[in-house]
Amino acid sequence: MQTNIGKKAAGEKAAGYIKPGMTVGLGTGSTAYYTILRIGELVRDGLDIKAVATSAQSEELAREQGIPLIDFDQVDSIDIDIDGADEADAQLQLIKGGGGALLREKIIAAASKEMVVVIDEQKLVKHLGKFPLPVEVATFAWELTFRQLVAIGAHPVLRMKDNQRFLTDNGNYILDCHYQKIHNAAALHAQLNNVPGVMENGLFLHYATRLIIGAADGSVREITHPYPAKTSF
Amino acid sequence: MQTNIGKKAAGEKAAGYIKPGMTVGLGTGSTAYYTILRIGELVRDGLDIKAVATSAQSEELAREQGIPLIDFDQVDSIDIDIDGADEADAQLQLIKGGGGALLREKIIAAASKEMVVVIDEQKLVKHLGKFPLPVEVATFAWELTFRQLVAIGAHPVLRMKDNQRFLTDNGNYILDCHYQKIHNAAALHAQLNNVPGVMENGLFLHYATRLIIGAADGSVREITHPYPAKTSF
Repeated sequence: MQTNIGKKAAGEKAAGYIKPGMTVGLGTGSTAYYTILRIGELVRDGLDIKAVATSAQSEELAREQGIPLIDFDQVDSIDIDIDGADEADAQLQLIKGGGGALLREKIIAAASKEMVVVIDEQKLVKHLGKFPLPVEVATFAWELTFRQLVAIGAHPVLRMKDNQRFLTDNGNYILDCHYQKIHNAAALHAQLNNVPGVMENGLFLHYATRLIIGAADGSVREITHPYPAKTSF
Repeated sequence: MQTNIGKKAAGEKAAGYIKPGMTVGLGTGSTAYYTILRIGELVRDGLDIKAVATSAQSEELAREQGIPLIDFDQVDSIDIDIDGADEADAQLQLIKGGGGALLREKIIAAASKEMVVVIDEQKLVKHLGKFPLPVEVATFAWELTFRQLVAIGAHPVLRMKDNQRFLTDNGNYILDCHYQKIHNAAALHAQLNNVPGVMENGLFLHYATRLIIGAADGSVREITHPYPAKTSF
């Protein structure tokens, strides 16, 4: 993998927010990758933490890095979740799920006290929606769910990979929905999750508490959450 | 199985609403069972229909009965869905999922022009909620989803079967939520589906268009939908 300076800078910076004794949520994707590598270094230097992973891929990487992983039945609460995003706006609203791990990522984000989001500057947008919104759907009668999404103007496209239907870690399909510009993200979120067969959608609206944006020159800037208090979901 | 006169009367009556050429959704459970048997008789007498099933169990029964089943990619629309319920009120709001098929049942109900609900009189209630509300959740980090449901007062209990965690046809768990009395079903529905990890919940609020209630003496009465038009979800 060719090093992306912005992703690396943002990803590594985020690891600095981890304190000894914390339970940490490990995100998925090309920026969270650098966070996990950096956490691995810190752990080998003696940082005492526990971690849970948002995907099979991140779990494997964490294991290679020697980061102690725990099962969810041992989790009291997650102190900090560090994850990437496909798009983020200045209000810390996100689109996630380009890698297909949105459901697991959202479960972890909802259970975390803080969510630090790491992106390169390309992913900071004025309006969400240019990146197609991933919607995870049950495989059972997915054609009917697809039609319901067409009916509400979602412009869904079934995600494929290597000429096969893409399957999430949960055994579901992804319908990538082409909105171009999302006007009322909260209303859209509720509308999508109200469609039977929709398991989750990639809008993360009240989760992120800090956005770390890496630039191509290796500099980073941060935006902290504009809303009064973290709601749990 | 011992014959329940009320269930049999309601289940068989519903089959009378099926017209030749229709695509029919086949429900799951002890009352829809009688509907499927009656449809089998009608098909053997020459009724020309196609059907889709809401569970592996109903699919098998339909096959035994010689009812022609089609795949969802061949379904243009479903004309009528006939299914049972664990509770129903006079506003045609339902709790479903006692048998664990709520997600599939709701996908079919949402795609159907009419939904006929068949129950015995025991299941007609003034207020929904005495029957524990089934909530289908992802197995991944289900402990975290469980905690979120505790936090919103859902009193969840993980469903077990034969000393194992009950798995739905979709490979998910069921958390049975003990509300006793549900006051604002629409608000609760949105709140539950907004919890990451919740795949679907057993409240069916705007689906049923006709309720057929069978009494122990074999008589039936019907309630038709009180709302102006069927919404698709």
